[in-house]
Amino acid sequence: MKALVFHGPGKSSWDEVPDPALKDAGDVVVRVDAVTICGTDLHILKGDVPEVAPGTVLGHEAVGEVVEAGSGVHAVRPGDRVLISCISACGRCRFCREARYGQCLGGGGWVLGHLIDGTQAEYVRVPHADLSVHPLPGGVSGQDAVLLADIFPTAYEVGVLNGRVGPGDTVAVVGAGPIGLAAITTAQLFTPGRVIAVDLSPARLDAARQFGADAVVNAAEDPARLIEDLTDGAGADVAIEAVGVPESFELCTRTVRAGGHVANIGVHGKPAVLHLEDLWIKDVTITTGLVDTFSTPTLLRMIATGRLPTGPLVTHTFSLDQMEEAYEVFSAADSGALKVVLERSAA
Amino acid sequence: MKALVFHGPGKSSWDEVPDPALKDAGDVVVRVDAVTICGTDLHILKGDVPEVAPGTVLGHEAVGEVVEAGSGVHAVRPGDRVLISCISACGRCRFCREARYGQCLGGGGWVLGHLIDGTQAEYVRVPHADLSVHPLPGGVSGQDAVLLADIFPTAYEVGVLNGRVGPGDTVAVVGAGPIGLAAITTAQLFTPGRVIAVDLSPARLDAARQFGADAVVNAAEDPARLIEDLTDGAGADVAIEAVGVPESFELCTRTVRAGGHVANIGVHGKPAVLHLEDLWIKDVTITTGLVDTFSTPTLLRMIATGRLPTGPLVTHTFSLDQMEEAYEVFSAADSGALKVVLERSAA
Amino acid sequence: MKALVFHGPGKSSWDEVPDPALKDAGDVVVRVDAVTICGTDLHILKGDVPEVAPGTVLGHEAVGEVVEAGSGVHAVRPGDRVLISCISACGRCRFCREARYGQCLGGGGWVLGHLIDGTQAEYVRVPHADLSVHPLPGGVSGQDAVLLADIFPTAYEVGVLNGRVGPGDTVAVVGAGPIGLAAITTAQLFTPGRVIAVDLSPARLDAARQFGADAVVNAAEDPARLIEDLTDGAGADVAIEAVGVPESFELCTRTVRAGGHVANIGVHGKPAVLHLEDLWIKDVTITTGLVDTFSTPTLLRMIATGRLPTGPLVTHTFSLDQMEEAYEVFSAADSGALKVVLERSAA
Amino acid sequence: MKALVFHGPGKSSWDEVPDPALKDAGDVVVRVDAVTICGTDLHILKGDVPEVAPGTVLGHEAVGEVVEAGSGVHAVRPGDRVLISCISACGRCRFCREARYGQCLGGGGWVLGHLIDGTQAEYVRVPHADLSVHPLPGGVSGQDAVLLADIFPTAYEVGVLNGRVGPGDTVAVVGAGPIGLAAITTAQLFTPGRVIAVDLSPARLDAARQFGADAVVNAAEDPARLIEDLTDGAGADVAIEAVGVPESFELCTRTVRAGGHVANIGVHGKPAVLHLEDLWIKDVTITTGLVDTFSTPTLLRMIATGRLPTGPLVTHTFSLDQMEEAYEVFSAADSGALKVVLERSAA
Repeated sequence: MKALVFHGPGKSSWDEVPDPALKDAGDVVVRVDAVTICGTDLHILKGDVPEVAPGTVLGHEAVGEVVEAGSGVHAVRPGDRVLISCISACGRCRFCREARYGQCLGGGGWVLGHLIDGTQAEYVRVPHADLSVHPLPGGVSGQDAVLLADIFPTAYEVGVLNGRVGPGDTVAVVGAGPIGLAAITTAQLFTPGRVIAVDLSPARLDAARQFGADAVVNAAEDPARLIEDLTDGAGADVAIEAVGVPESFELCTRTVRAGGHVANIGVHGKPAVLHLEDLWIKDVTITTGLVDTFSTPTLLRMIATGRLPTGPLVTHTFSLDQMEEAYEVFSAADSGALKVVLERSAA
Repeated sequence: MKALVFHGPGKSSWDEVPDPALKDAGDVVVRVDAVTICGTDLHILKGDVPEVAPGTVLGHEAVGEVVEAGSGVHAVRPGDRVLISCISACGRCRFCREARYGQCLGGGGWVLGHLIDGTQAEYVRVPHADLSVHPLPGGVSGQDAVLLADIFPTAYEVGVLNGRVGPGDTVAVVGAGPIGLAAITTAQLFTPGRVIAVDLSPARLDAARQFGADAVVNAAEDPARLIEDLTDGAGADVAIEAVGVPESFELCTRTVRAGGHVANIGVHGKPAVLHLEDLWIKDVTITTGLVDTFSTPTLLRMIATGRLPTGPLVTHTFSLDQMEEAYEVFSAADSGALKVVLERSAA
Repeated sequence: MKALVFHGPGKSSWDEVPDPALKDAGDVVVRVDAVTICGTDLHILKGDVPEVAPGTVLGHEAVGEVVEAGSGVHAVRPGDRVLISCISACGRCRFCREARYGQCLGGGGWVLGHLIDGTQAEYVRVPHADLSVHPLPGGVSGQDAVLLADIFPTAYEVGVLNGRVGPGDTVAVVGAGPIGLAAITTAQLFTPGRVIAVDLSPARLDAARQFGADAVVNAAEDPARLIEDLTDGAGADVAIEAVGVPESFELCTRTVRAGGHVANIGVHGKPAVLHLEDLWIKDVTITTGLVDTFSTPTLLRMIATGRLPTGPLVTHTFSLDQMEEAYEVFSAADSGALKVVLERSAA
Repeated sequence: MKALVFHGPGKSSWDEVPDPALKDAGDVVVRVDAVTICGTDLHILKGDVPEVAPGTVLGHEAVGEVVEAGSGVHAVRPGDRVLISCISACGRCRFCREARYGQCLGGGGWVLGHLIDGTQAEYVRVPHADLSVHPLPGGVSGQDAVLLADIFPTAYEVGVLNGRVGPGDTVAVVGAGPIGLAAITTAQLFTPGRVIAVDLSPARLDAARQFGADAVVNAAEDPARLIEDLTDGAGADVAIEAVGVPESFELCTRTVRAGGHVANIGVHGKPAVLHLEDLWIKDVTITTGLVDTFSTPTLLRMIATGRLPTGPLVTHTFSLDQMEEAYEVFSAADSGALKVVLERSAA
């Protein structure tokens, strides 16, 4: 089959590789029908994620059809259309027992396209299938569903739920890239009073408005001041970090109100400064975390019934064999790409 | 009357000052029977708390008898023996409505010995008395009760409750001064599996054992390693910071397990480094906060029935007019002082 | 002034009575601009609430202007337009400290039109004003605001929050009278997957659809079956009782899923049968409670910004002096009345 | 092998039956080293649990050694000493994903000695072994560990955790049989202010005191009054039902304070009367539920380190082949038996 193979920093190609096969009774092999590219994939290509061995097939988000299932798989069978979660889960370890699947100690967690071959391929083996793939409700398109492999549960669990967004709250979302836009979308499930988006890019701030932000502010123009003004000096009830750089995290801690929550979603490569000389007295809760995807079945149900609008997140579509071109578009600063989806061509 | 007056950085004295009087219908005046000195008072004397104006009477912890009560006071009356909480509360503002009294916007919060005259005096005026003083149950000694003015609710609310200590947990308490010892004591209300105390001072580590720590480790001897070993590599379920310096906070974030809690109690004067490059993926919750003293009535009840042993926290006692000497002992590194209590002499 | 005076079971009239005056430093007197009638008022008139003494002015919901404020009132002053909450709160007792104002032990709780003179009058004295009246945001109409005196916080706190409605949930609301319709409205703040309304009246079921119910079912037509079918046999995640009779409560306990919540809002006059022989094994949580109105400031803010649509709940309006006629319409089975509002005539 | 076989209401015997064998890749076969008898087993024998088919081996609590493990078992292997939980868990269904194992839809829940052959035998097959048996920490005796198969997690999860027992609380435990005594024991993990035991039997009330109850009251002597007196008229913060008859449940709802919790543990055969005419206004939370045993690993760790004293719960021990005699003693009203344990004879 064909797959996007990582060949070390800066190098990847759409190669012919052996078809995947079952290795364990709990595995399935899935034919990929729709797949997307994540910002994390770009980090891998830059060499920022050294655990990824050259030769690994990239990708951790996909929708497809089960073509083979191990004898120990109970939840799906060949022919089922499924969502492949970015997080696999053994279901047995201390973390899986608390639905903290992202921390799985039993061979799960984020493994696809990281420690084992991933989904940017014609076929993919998924371990621990019972807890790692989700049958798709009828009527959900591949393009919509693939957004639930990673970006939507991440924004929802790590941003909105960890941040405890509630009715009437002022929510600041710092970063209006795909994950920030998904946070803006899922924050609205709790009817906040006001969502304020912060970004450096006017185009992304426009997108934020389209996804439901009530106010937007350029990060260069003193966003802390605007948020303070809008909240009569109190600050945001919830500040969601969706960039992954120290400046945006520090803005969140500066703009959150006493008693509020800072929920970090961003993937950080450097430490931030935590101003404990201001914060020690301020009753602030700060959370970090990898997504667990425990919410995926609920989000799938909601997307099937129109309760979770995904908005115009998918800006570009390609056929699977245009993988290299899709990477170029996704990584180009000026392409306007939010999420790109690659779909298997109808034969 | 006599009172300990702050005269600017480095200067304070036991002076003759006018007796306090009621200013507002919600005030009481209390005759001080027992009072203590807090580490924060030493910070004020060093000049670290510039809001304290010269001329202010210091002190925010005391037990005494109400001698006068305003017309709007309902909860206590002259003759009642009361605990004066370090936190006053208007009971009306948005924060007080959530029992977040430490953040009171209506003239409460930490005001005694800070923004208004405090308790290191023969008499003290307490505003918003209904929510700011607590009638003492019979049989509770002044020495025990005065520990509930600040140190015990702080350790319990900001350390143990914010950290969500639960049965079976491994709890690391970094800092075994008075507040850390109170955290060790109140953590035991939830029957943790193991309390590990960390400090640089062998004497304080001995005290930690006396207060119930199951293991102690010198901060100079790789405490993160010991905690890792004791928890099969997982880390502490809860790490409580009870010092107030960047190093101890950073130790807490390094030693907490995935999914665990870091509860900061320490009063910090400098920023810390937050290693988001490690923590972003680790499902950590970090909390900060000033005490609210919402738990004081419960703790008072528990102390009255022997459910909350205060241990040998009070190492030295003085009479009120030995205030200056008590400060010297309390601030001397080699005095072995934990808490010092000053009591009104029986006339 | 004129007021609606209770004269014992079955008897009330719009009488000339003395104007109210301040009694305590914490009181305000409010000129009533808009007032409504509650189902509870009809219960009082039937004689079901024997604590109400003949001679009492009825009513516990109103909007008006403060005309006089005691010396201990800090939150409002004469000239302020305020919402009068159905619950008064001393702010000092053990229950008020937990924001459980409905259980106030200090002279609050539900007292207006119950233990003291109420709001169906030209003027009303409100005790403990600081926590018992709420300044109105600009732009909120009296008709909208008066719905936040009782019915909306009751439906939201006792139904939706106690029931822990969450995104994607199936919520059954049993009873589609005013309180049930308010529960249907406020449940939507959490984006449930599906709201199912149950009632005996086709007109009320029509109203339920208008307020956002996704499915409606006549109580006579096996609603438990329909809910079972819609949920693949599981049952409702949350069942909200909004009638106050044993049958509707028992339907809730029968239709809730294992692990689900039954939230009782209804005012009951008789015991219900609790089928513990079925429920003991079913992981069900049942809650009861009087409203606390802790959510009123949040709901007011949401109504001011259009986040909380009140829908066509107010079906009839009258002038204040048409009080007796308004009672007749409100109590007539065939009037189609949901809420009736009486407004002070512009002089 | 030998096993205690149910032959229909009133009939059971210690019979020779075929040895159990693996049926599924996730199964283990365990050699039983210690086993106990549950009150539920007596109900089965009375014919109260009609799902139990004649021919079924009874028993759902045991400790033993794994002798055979299916190819899909990862958590234990032959030779491991394990606790067999009364609850089996598939780990995949919607309930298992929430750690609500008692409601397992995938072939787990309470199945041992109920829907499949149980543990009162020389050997037993346990399905879904990864989540259904727990490796024993070294140094835990079989007699202690077997109490963690059912009775301790049931009392802890369904009574103490559902009831939200907290420091300083007044906890009423109605019923001082084995499960009530385990509730008294595990309530103390949260340092309540006072545990009050209620029972009809003076011997059981004596036992309650031995297990740590602070006060005891005979159910015939107006326990509601005593609890009211002890709590200054407020009532219990938490009332735990540990009998399973309407009277004891109704006592719990009568004696709980406004804002308190009633946690039902008892297995009920009849409905109770729920006095909604009193309770609707009282802010009460009532919970029911089957144990999930999610807490078993924590409780095992605590028992291993002496944090959870099991007290003198085991009053009688037998060898396995004295099974019929053990049933006689356990069911005799006058035997004073709390828990009886049967142990494999050292060969």
